[in-house]
Amino acid sequence: MESEHVDGSPIFDSLDIDLFVKVFANTAFSPFFVMLIPTFYVFQGAKLTDPIVVTSTIYYVFVSLFWAVKWISRLYSNQGNLFYAPKPFEWGDQVVVITGGSSGVGELLANTLAVKSVTVVVLDVKPIQTQNYNIRYYKCDVSKWEEVEAVSKKIVEEVGQPTVLVNNAGVVQGKLILDLSPEDIQQTFGVNTLAHFWTLKAFLPGMIEKKKGHIVTVASAMGIHGVAQMTDYCASKAALINLNRSLRSELDKRYKCPAIRTTLVAPGHIHTALFATLRPSPQFFFPTIHPIDVVKRVIQALDDTHSQTIYLPFYVHFMPLLQLLPDFVSDFASWLTGADFAMKDFVKVSGRREEEGAAPELLNGHKMS
Amino acid sequence: MESEHVDGSPIFDSLDIDLFVKVFANTAFSPFFVMLIPTFYVFQGAKLTDPIVVTSTIYYVFVSLFWAVKWISRLYSNQGNLFYAPKPFEWGDQVVVITGGSSGVGELLANTLAVKSVTVVVLDVKPIQTQNYNIRYYKCDVSKWEEVEAVSKKIVEEVGQPTVLVNNAGVVQGKLILDLSPEDIQQTFGVNTLAHFWTLKAFLPGMIEKKKGHIVTVASAMGIHGVAQMTDYCASKAALINLNRSLRSELDKRYKCPAIRTTLVAPGHIHTALFATLRPSPQFFFPTIHPIDVVKRVIQALDDTHSQTIYLPFYVHFMPLLQLLPDFVSDFASWLTGADFAMKDFVKVSGRREEEGAAPELLNGHKMS
Repeated sequence: MESEHVDGSPIFDSLDIDLFVKVFANTAFSPFFVMLIPTFYVFQGAKLTDPIVVTSTIYYVFVSLFWAVKWISRLYSNQGNLFYAPKPFEWGDQVVVITGGSSGVGELLANTLAVKSVTVVVLDVKPIQTQNYNIRYYKCDVSKWEEVEAVSKKIVEEVGQPTVLVNNAGVVQGKLILDLSPEDIQQTFGVNTLAHFWTLKAFLPGMIEKKKGHIVTVASAMGIHGVAQMTDYCASKAALINLNRSLRSELDKRYKCPAIRTTLVAPGHIHTALFATLRPSPQFFFPTIHPIDVVKRVIQALDDTHSQTIYLPFYVHFMPLLQLLPDFVSDFASWLTGADFAMKDFVKVSGRREEEGAAPELLNGHKMS
Repeated sequence: MESEHVDGSPIFDSLDIDLFVKVFANTAFSPFFVMLIPTFYVFQGAKLTDPIVVTSTIYYVFVSLFWAVKWISRLYSNQGNLFYAPKPFEWGDQVVVITGGSSGVGELLANTLAVKSVTVVVLDVKPIQTQNYNIRYYKCDVSKWEEVEAVSKKIVEEVGQPTVLVNNAGVVQGKLILDLSPEDIQQTFGVNTLAHFWTLKAFLPGMIEKKKGHIVTVASAMGIHGVAQMTDYCASKAALINLNRSLRSELDKRYKCPAIRTTLVAPGHIHTALFATLRPSPQFFFPTIHPIDVVKRVIQALDDTHSQTIYLPFYVHFMPLLQLLPDFVSDFASWLTGADFAMKDFVKVSGRREEEGAAPELLNGHKMS
């Protein structure tokens, strides 16, 4: 891998809206911090009825309520208790299956977990380059049920029953709808959507038996709101977001396994080989994130053993609003980000099928695998 | 067809929230009606500064603004003009392709359009029962690209270039995720999702040539928010909702064909054979709609030649909110509607594959086709 594009971990946070949000959440929007304002004023001799004390207290209540609702909602979804934290997650006992684990976010997640001495099983069409003996690689085209079924049996025998399933494999064609060949469309839905059903069919029964487990669904911000030159990809990822929801309902209400967690990841543009040829959007408001940002949050979700919805970067939180607002708002957003033209120079580098041949050399002379 | 379930057109509106909304939209929420309140008061001798005149005027402004934004948004999306209506739609010149047009909503739409002397082309695996000579039936499994490609060529030769494409075919398995066979899942995505890509590949080029046309995507409210025992269906329909969006972007920005309209239909429970064995939800707030309600709105969209989003019944408008609200809200909604148990008695009656055999007799002795 000579691709300098997969630069996992930047040393500095870049100066963008996400950094401001992070700072803001720990200062002006933190209940602990905000509480100090009226307190200090009162200690300085201000009366309880002084406007500054009243307004800062009201603001404090508002901020606290926001976090309280967020926290209670999360505890509610995870049958949590306000006073007891869940038992710590036993990393050493886990068998984590990662589809598409030989490159990009999947690869980084596999390597990061492996150094935590987790048993990692990578399913991919090409082998993972790693020295870590905690990582087992199984060749598998996850878009094919027969391969997933066969490999899953081998995994249970040779490694053990998986406790965490990270459905991460994805492929991008990056063509306008009429340029997509039937094989392109079949591949997109096979890898991006059907593979989730196949791996669930293979690994969920074992989790249901133990009434425990964690299923991580890696979708995309583009699954929330579609853009041009990505009709198939956007549709296949939207399917995942809704699959995560109905799966949650089935686990809670029908299989009576609320302790099998479901985490949805909907990232924006990630700095990996897959999307290296994407035209970047204005970085301040719509920053490109690094694989490590995603991996950190996924590991956090696993460690918390809490079902979560991970929207990254911050702007993705607002994308579900687009379908409630008039069309000119989403048109404005797409103009601002250049989303409908972002794929114009796209080159498919990963997931190329045999008949497609090797990826063309890129202009800068680097070939990415 | 001995199924009394496909009762297309009820004589009376049922007493539910949708009727109230309809009445409300034409009275207390109609700018024309509301304008009369301050006007009458002033004519009765009230001063312009009287609280009743001021508050009713503010309310009038608010109501007017609501409709103005809605209307301007629609004109904006359709390159419309505030002063000129679009040219009337020439029904006689249209060739309307309807997939899954031999039963349910598709069948009713086909028959309704045919009596308007529109040339209707029905693609379905089973023939449509009709005496109307404006309806041409082509046997086609729309989940297969080869069949769609072959049939589409025949249609263009024998009937002419389609001007309207109604992608309506759909299939429901109604099983929990682990009970779904690989064939079930393939069929769901083949019929519900891939078929849209196939028909678009087949019929869109002709529309792009003329820079005119209308694509109606029949999705589902369940594509907005997933429920149990419908993982595959919900996912396949969510894909369509997002496909409609990215297709809109491509037509506007990349193919430069804004006059090719795209209408999305996301209905709740429709009273057809497909969902006859669904446990109904509380009818007042979550009424079951009749096929004619959907057909009326689709024909209206075609007649307006405006891209539209058709949410039916009224509650569907609020479903996109669920993903923005804490989980307990959607849990409450699902408890209220019984959505996660609605499919418990489901029997698959249409789209049965050969290996599945005939549909079992239903308890009431009626067999539905």
